[in-house]
Amino acid sequence: MRELPQLLDLITSFSRENPFPASPQELYEPCNYILTLGGKRIRPALVLMGHELYRDNVESALPAAWAVELFHNFSLMHDDIMDAAPLRRGKPTVHHKWDTTTAILSGDVMLIFAYRFLARCGDSDTVLQLIHIFNRVATAVCEGQQMDVNFETRPEVSIPEYLKMIELKTAVLLGAALEMGAVSANAPAADAKHLYEFGRLAGIAFQIQDDLLDTYGDPAKFGKQVGGDILQNKKTLLVLKTLENASESDCRELRKWMETSAENAVEKVAAVRAIFDRNAIPEMVSKEKQRIQQKAFQHLEAVQLPEVRKVILRKTVADLLERDS
Amino acid sequence: MRELPQLLDLITSFSRENPFPASPQELYEPCNYILTLGGKRIRPALVLMGHELYRDNVESALPAAWAVELFHNFSLMHDDIMDAAPLRRGKPTVHHKWDTTTAILSGDVMLIFAYRFLARCGDSDTVLQLIHIFNRVATAVCEGQQMDVNFETRPEVSIPEYLKMIELKTAVLLGAALEMGAVSANAPAADAKHLYEFGRLAGIAFQIQDDLLDTYGDPAKFGKQVGGDILQNKKTLLVLKTLENASESDCRELRKWMETSAENAVEKVAAVRAIFDRNAIPEMVSKEKQRIQQKAFQHLEAVQLPEVRKVILRKTVADLLERDS
Repeated sequence: MRELPQLLDLITSFSRENPFPASPQELYEPCNYILTLGGKRIRPALVLMGHELYRDNVESALPAAWAVELFHNFSLMHDDIMDAAPLRRGKPTVHHKWDTTTAILSGDVMLIFAYRFLARCGDSDTVLQLIHIFNRVATAVCEGQQMDVNFETRPEVSIPEYLKMIELKTAVLLGAALEMGAVSANAPAADAKHLYEFGRLAGIAFQIQDDLLDTYGDPAKFGKQVGGDILQNKKTLLVLKTLENASESDCRELRKWMETSAENAVEKVAAVRAIFDRNAIPEMVSKEKQRIQQKAFQHLEAVQLPEVRKVILRKTVADLLERDS
Repeated sequence: MRELPQLLDLITSFSRENPFPASPQELYEPCNYILTLGGKRIRPALVLMGHELYRDNVESALPAAWAVELFHNFSLMHDDIMDAAPLRRGKPTVHHKWDTTTAILSGDVMLIFAYRFLARCGDSDTVLQLIHIFNRVATAVCEGQQMDVNFETRPEVSIPEYLKMIELKTAVLLGAALEMGAVSANAPAADAKHLYEFGRLAGIAFQIQDDLLDTYGDPAKFGKQVGGDILQNKKTLLVLKTLENASESDCRELRKWMETSAENAVEKVAAVRAIFDRNAIPEMVSKEKQRIQQKAFQHLEAVQLPEVRKVILRKTVADLLERDS
């Protein structure tokens, strides 16, 4: 079985051997651009790991792995337009470097290429199973993005609604990556389902970790501006837990900060963080993350395989969930 | 065999029985909206006709037919953003009625639903064949749209380039509709190829007819403003043929009109039309259309079926190509 770095090397080689067409250059160049911005490629790696649990011929899962990576980047390209985001991983987003027309059309063709790679994943029964999973999850990701868009302008968002949104927008794709890998290796259906649940729940925990790091991450390690969510008045789990648990006056103060754009960014981040801190919100959110994470790993335990097959996957996901940046 | 109106009724029933999910409403309502703007639904009808050439169980081709209609409407929704078009068929476009975010995301989910319907088209071998055709053509449509975008700002466009653009952007989908119908009925591969060519060439002729009607259509019958292409300075086949064939002074005059936005719309349309007329451009373009149309019907002749099976398809496409609005 291969470790994460070896799997990432395989993915990089596959992407080099399967480039986008050269022409029309204006269509495909932005696709190549976003793929080289340096994402962690955790999703395609999970496809390969899901496959390697059952079979060693991991090469046969590479088209499915690449399809998942293309889908993820399609959704980033379109989300960046919707969020009017100027930067992604410190580099200009596609609609900023080129324009909105380019980001729409290049995103569209990336989604279609995801299906092109999927259609190459072995015999037609396997391909059809993969496409069913992919269709289900692609729909969920759009629905999650719509919920996220809706939440921006809604005054009240409940914690279950928030968890549903991050589940659809982010977590189900991690689950589907593992499930697709398992299906591409003809894994038993019950195992494939447990792996989906493992990835889905780990994905929710991962996203909660993201909320925590955005406010409490080490500025030296964290890629983005610490406090970015606070400055954008995002309704993160930290905010929602505060509104559910804090005193009326703390809730009022938090709402006041969230209704105004910051004149002094440092002051605003410090003030909101102080509200979180004095209500022990980071501890509460951390506990919620731990709870979901434990449920996730129970599904990995339920997978009917010898322990030794699961070591690399367990370690990879555990590392992801303990990351500090 | 069923006539066009019967097939259209089947498509309408199928769409009613297979609605989009109710929620998130903000995501799916625009999908329903664009589908009720009153398109001719010629593409899904061609899928059904391609199937009916070989088999009577046309119901089994309905998911593929609906997939093609959803794809077409996905591309309209995104193209309207890129063209900054306020109206489609006299009604507000999605990005005008809602906003750009909505039109991007609802378009994305329509494309994904096209694949969902495709995945329901019979046994896995047939589905995979259909998905291969669909992937190929979906890619071509994006490439054609990119060429169209590029042409807007390019000073020179050759006639072969223009014909290639309309082939990719519009015609291949008509060809693929027929091919998919035939494949869903297990037609011989050679027939499926001829049907693709028939639809592709008819599609090019159809688009040339569109260029002619935009300038020479009967205002009482034509849905859009006659002369719209002239006012938008579009490099249609009429323009390109003029630049290839007219005197230097006529070319100069045409270029001058195309470089300025019209102060007086009626005057501009009349002046440009006069240049076309005195160079016999409409006759020339008409002849080009006839030539391509003849080649199209040769492919229908080559299909190995008794004449009686082809009657409805031949008449439907001939009517389309003789339409005056």
